This record gives sequence, structure tokens and C-alpha cells, in this order.
Amino acid sequence: MTCPIPFSVEARHGAARAGVLRAARGEIRTPVFMPVGTQGAIRTLSPLHLASTGSQVILANTYHLHQRPGEDLVEKHGGLHKMMGVDLPILTDSGGFQVFSLKKKRVEEQGVTFSYEVDGRRTFLSPEISMAIQQKLGADIAMVFDECLPHGVDRAYAEDSVGRTTRWELRSKQAHTRPDQSLFGIVQGGFWPDLRRRSIEEICGIGFDGYAIGGLSVGEGHRKMCEVLDYTVGYMPDDHPRYLMGVGRPLDLVEGVARGVDMFDCVIQTRHARSGMFYTTPGRLRVTDRRYRRDMYPVDTSCDCYTCTTFTRAYLHHLFRVGEVLGATLATIHNLHWFAGFMARMRQSIVDGTFEAFRAEVHEAYPEKGSKRSQSKG
Amino acid sequence: MTCPIPFSVEARHGAARAGVLRAARGEIRTPVFMPVGTQGAIRTLSPLHLASTGSQVILANTYHLHQRPGEDLVEKHGGLHKMMGVDLPILTDSGGFQVFSLKKKRVEEQGVTFSYEVDGRRTFLSPEISMAIQQKLGADIAMVFDECLPHGVDRAYAEDSVGRTTRWELRSKQAHTRPDQSLFGIVQGGFWPDLRRRSIEEICGIGFDGYAIGGLSVGEGHRKMCEVLDYTVGYMPDDHPRYLMGVGRPLDLVEGVARGVDMFDCVIQTRHARSGMFYTTPGRLRVTDRRYRRDMYPVDTSCDCYTCTTFTRAYLHHLFRVGEVLGATLATIHNLHWFAGFMARMRQSIVDGTFEAFRAEVHEAYPEKGSKRSQSKG
Repeated sequence: MTCPIPFSVEARHGAARAGVLRAARGEIRTPVFMPVGTQGAIRTLSPLHLASTGSQVILANTYHLHQRPGEDLVEKHGGLHKMMGVDLPILTDSGGFQVFSLKKKRVEEQGVTFSYEVDGRRTFLSPEISMAIQQKLGADIAMVFDECLPHGVDRAYAEDSVGRTTRWELRSKQAHTRPDQSLFGIVQGGFWPDLRRRSIEEICGIGFDGYAIGGLSVGEGHRKMCEVLDYTVGYMPDDHPRYLMGVGRPLDLVEGVARGVDMFDCVIQTRHARSGMFYTTPGRLRVTDRRYRRDMYPVDTSCDCYTCTTFTRAYLHHLFRVGEVLGATLATIHNLHWFAGFMARMRQSIVDGTFEAFRAEVHEAYPEKGSKRSQSKG
Repeated sequence: MTCPIPFSVEARHGAARAGVLRAARGEIRTPVFMPVGTQGAIRTLSPLHLASTGSQVILANTYHLHQRPGEDLVEKHGGLHKMMGVDLPILTDSGGFQVFSLKKKRVEEQGVTFSYEVDGRRTFLSPEISMAIQQKLGADIAMVFDECLPHGVDRAYAEDSVGRTTRWELRSKQAHTRPDQSLFGIVQGGFWPDLRRRSIEEICGIGFDGYAIGGLSVGEGHRKMCEVLDYTVGYMPDDHPRYLMGVGRPLDLVEGVARGVDMFDCVIQTRHARSGMFYTTPGRLRVTDRRYRRDMYPVDTSCDCYTCTTFTRAYLHHLFRVGEVLGATLATIHNLHWFAGFMARMRQSIVDGTFEAFRAEVHEAYPEKGSKRSQSKG
């Protein structure tokens, strides 16, 4: 079967790659950051504004959409794109990450039983069910159903889990029949190099259209994340896209790319926006800070997003101060636009051979937490 | 001094008029409904979406903007339009209505002292201060500072108040010096025909660019409102715009227009939107109702707004159900678009001589509360 979204690498700088995913709904130039629309919408953002941010692909959550409004209703719309009014490519996760972050659940070979957090309803998810849901949601890229290992499990559990994840991914592939939808595998293995290696071998043995690194962004910290990438990414197939799940801080992005990752998703861009935190090239800016009360500059003087070309910091400060939700919308527009531009500049630096200079700038503006305090800048 | 916004009547049907206000920022075709942007923003709505609703002029609240962010900051931006990123004409109220709806206040000849509801700060407003604030806000139309009589005051107080309001309006006019800003007077007089008549004579004696009817929308009900209009509007100058403040239900709009009113403002369009209440030609539709859970139609099949041309009732139902604020934004877009279209159709019916048929339709779709229950329709 041919892959519905062909991938090619156009330029390299060390392990970093500039690639292209040729999706039917549009080319995705990698490295790419994917904003998250958890419940069938990028929070506070209309598709009209989303289109202006330069985002190339967005993520939607199978777990949440399965609960509300349910995949049957999405299918009735003709899929997520039609329901949400979004023309961009969409990737759906498998529900694995959400389910495994729940406290009350029972993991068995067949699948996972848990209570839905909103109404306590008993729910069962398995590779087959996740595939059925994702095929109805109709995203361009679906993810296999895996077990996302929490930070801190013991070696014996991790070994069991890696084997189970392999079996679940095989079942995912067997259950996946939608020819216009890519299916990505997920590498697990926690913080054991040999388990990561074993997972890669087993998952690649099954064969997918792309490969994700799961089990990170679980509180391990930047250094530990880099360490895992160091003993994982290089062993993943070079001719397929590599996707680091749930990761999206600027420093994590540039270090992920430096190690050969192509795709990322994260909620901080939109979540931080809703609290008035703006990302800019010199560093983060908390517009709710009193110092911006009378500041007549745009948040980012070099930014050409709708927010920065239309409004002042003082006005945005005012909107957040009076609790006007338009402030959250305008911050979301800026942050998504900024991250799209950030990834585009990173890509260009790979093409131009200036990636190391770009990487150094990111370390300056977005230093590792704790190593040096990140400061809001004016 | 010439009026900065000339007004002319282009067609009549009985007392109803189709007119034009020629503002520097664009023609305002009357009768017109003005959405309210209380705190320097139409809640949940970016100017980009506002522009798509067909709204011709919006209202901003002097009282709220004086408190936060303060008129000096607005002036520093070059006025409200620049701060808000809105090119449409703007009208600012005088603060009178908000102040007089506060419980704790002291009314004296010089002005009103009250505590700001958010932080308890002691504040003083007078005709001179209101004019100074509004001139800094820089709207196209400013309103005189008046005393808005609450429903239920006695005759003696009302007589005193009408006299005071006249003196305050004279002081407003004397304090108003901005040549590019229209100034509208406000007729008070409560529910006494002779006091309304006296107020009209005194206010018109001062002379303003337009005349508003104040003191309604204070809980008096539709019939009482019509009664007041019956003994008020006909005595107001025919060659100036007439503005009924704080009124905007469909039935109130059509009955106001039938009596010769040209301008209206109201918060229900945006407030109801935020609770999932959509206005449509056959009647209101509460999209949060369970019956719309799987409904694949747009809210209003005959509507060409962004919301109705992009999303289904089922999707909007979902957004409200999961508490996603995008639902409020999309409902606000629809409601403002619908009311703009409603007023445009009403205007056309005046031009075409079919106003009575239009009026009858409105009574059918939006009957008087209590006389017959208004029902959500599918």
C-alpha cells in the first residue's frame, strides 16, 4: 500500500532535517509545530483567524472527541475538517496519552477500561476501537494505540509494557483500513536505552507511514528528554517523518530538531496565550504585567500577525485586566503565528547551514528552566 | 457650527423613516441597531469578525472606559477607533445610565458622586467631566450627561430631575468643543407625558445634532415603552436623528421605528449569544437545546454570515456543551449579522411601502412577552 502522505528530506544540517510531507490538503514543511484543538476547536480561535497564523497542520484529541460529541457525529459531518470548518491537514492522537494520564484505569491485553472524567461513564479503549474512532474522525494522520509509560515505573513493568505496545500497534495496523489516512507508529520504552531500541525494532518491523516518540513530556525535564532523544532518534528510520509527541517549548523544539525530529505538538502555545503570555523572539512577554499598562508598542515589533499589526500592549493589557476573552483570542493568534514563524526560520537555517547560530539564539532567549531564569522582556 | 454628521430622511412610511447619517467614517443607514462594546471591545469578537457582520456603528461606554483603561490612555492611542482597531463610527454614552443604575450615589447640582463597583474607588462625574472624557475617547457621536430616572420615582422628584437634566445638558453643550464630534441631547421625563414634552422643549431649545429618548429599558415592559414613545417621539424634531437608548429586542425595534425612532443600542444580541441563543427570522433558537445535538443544518438556513455558512447546529451545540468560548464568538457573529440584516430589511420595507407587512411578521416571530409564548424554532 502506498503511503497517502509521502515524505522527503530536502536539506540536512547534522542530524537536523528540512523535509516536506505532501498531504492531499496541502504541503507540510518540516520541522513543523502542530497546535492542539482538543475538543474540535483551537480554543478561542475561529478557523478564519487560524488560517492567518501560518499553521500547517493541527492536532485533535481522539479521547475527547470520542466522549463529546462522539465520532459518529463527526463522521456524519463528513469528518473533522468539515465539522470544524478547517481546510488544513489534521492529525488525531490515539487516546493513549489521555487514558494513561487518568488515575483510575485497568490495563489488560485486550485494552484499557477507565471512567470518563466528566461524567464518570465507564469506557473501554483498544487498538481496534481507537482505529475505528480515528477512521470516523477522518484526520489525515492517525496514531496507533499505545501504552504511554508514566515517569517512574519500574523496569519489569516497562518491559511488559513495551511488548504490549508492540502487540497493540500490530493490532492497530491490522484494524486500520482507511486508504486516505496515514498511520504513524509510536516508540515507547521509557528511560531505558535498550527498551527504546527494542521498541524501535519491533515497531519498524510492523511498518508505518511515520514514527513518533511517545512517553516524553511526562515531567522528565529538558535534559532527560534530550538524553532519551540521543539514544532513540538516530535509530529510527531516516526516510520517514519523526514526531515527538506533546513537546513544544522553544528550547525543546530546537533540541528536538537538532536530534532529527520533524514534528511536534504542544498545548502551551494556546494555554499560555489564555493567561496573557506572549512568545517573542527575544523571550516571553507577560502582557498582564503592570509595566505594559501604558505601552504603545505592539507585543512584538517585528511580528506581522493580526494582533501585532493591529493592537498595542496597553490595549491587550486592558483586555486581560477586564477579563475580556478577546484578549485570549488575540494572544492565541500571536503565539501560533510566532511558533509557525519560529519553525519556518529554523527550517531555513537548516537549508542555509546556519542552524547552529539559530540554536544558540534560542538558548539565549529561552534558556533551560533553572539553569538561568527566563525573563519577560520589553 | 455645522453638524459633523449630517442627517437626511430618504423615505417615510407613516411615522417610520429611512434615513442616512453621513459620518466621516462611513454612511450609517437608519434605522440602525448599534452593538455595544462596553469595555473597549465587542465581547468575544475581533474587529475582523465584526467587520463581517454588517454592523454600521458601535457603542462604547464612557463609564467603564473612564475606570479602565482610562480616557488618557485611549487618547494616547489616538482615540477609541485606533485602540480597538475598529474603522466603524463609534458612539459613546455619557456614563449617566451606568451611574444612575448604581445603588450608592449622591446626586447634586454639580454632578454625581459614587463608588466604582469594581474597587470601591470614589468617583465624581459631571457634565463637564463626561464631555472631557468623551472628547478624549474620540467617538464620532458623544452623548450629553443626564440623569436617567429610575422606574418608580415620584412626580416631585421627576420634576426636579427634568430641570436638572436640562441644566446638565446645557453645561454639556457649553463644555463640548470638539468640532469633529457630534453631540446628542437626551430627553427625560419618566412616564409623565407633560414632563416628556417639557424636556423636549428645553433640550431642543439648547439645540443638539440628534436627540435621544432616555429613561426607557428600565424594566417598564414593551407596552409602557410604546406608550411613552407615543407621547414623545412625535414632538421631537423631524429633521434630526432620534435615538432610543438601551432598547433592542426585535419587537421593540420595529415598534420604535413605527413611531419614528432611527437609532437603537442593546446588549441582548451579544449577551444572549454568549449563552447560545441565536436570533433568526422565524424566531429565537437556543442551540444548547438537546434537540440540536445531531442537527446538521446551519442555525439559520437563509443566513450568509460566517457562522451559518461554515458550521452546523450540532457543532455549535458541542462547543457550548464543552464550554468552548469559540461558540460564544460564533454566536455573536451570527446575532450581530442577523440584527444588521433585520434593520436593513426593515429599512427596505419603509422604502418599498411594505413596512406594515414586515411589522406583522416581527409580531409573529417575536411576540410580546406574556401575550403569547415565544418559542424556539427548528
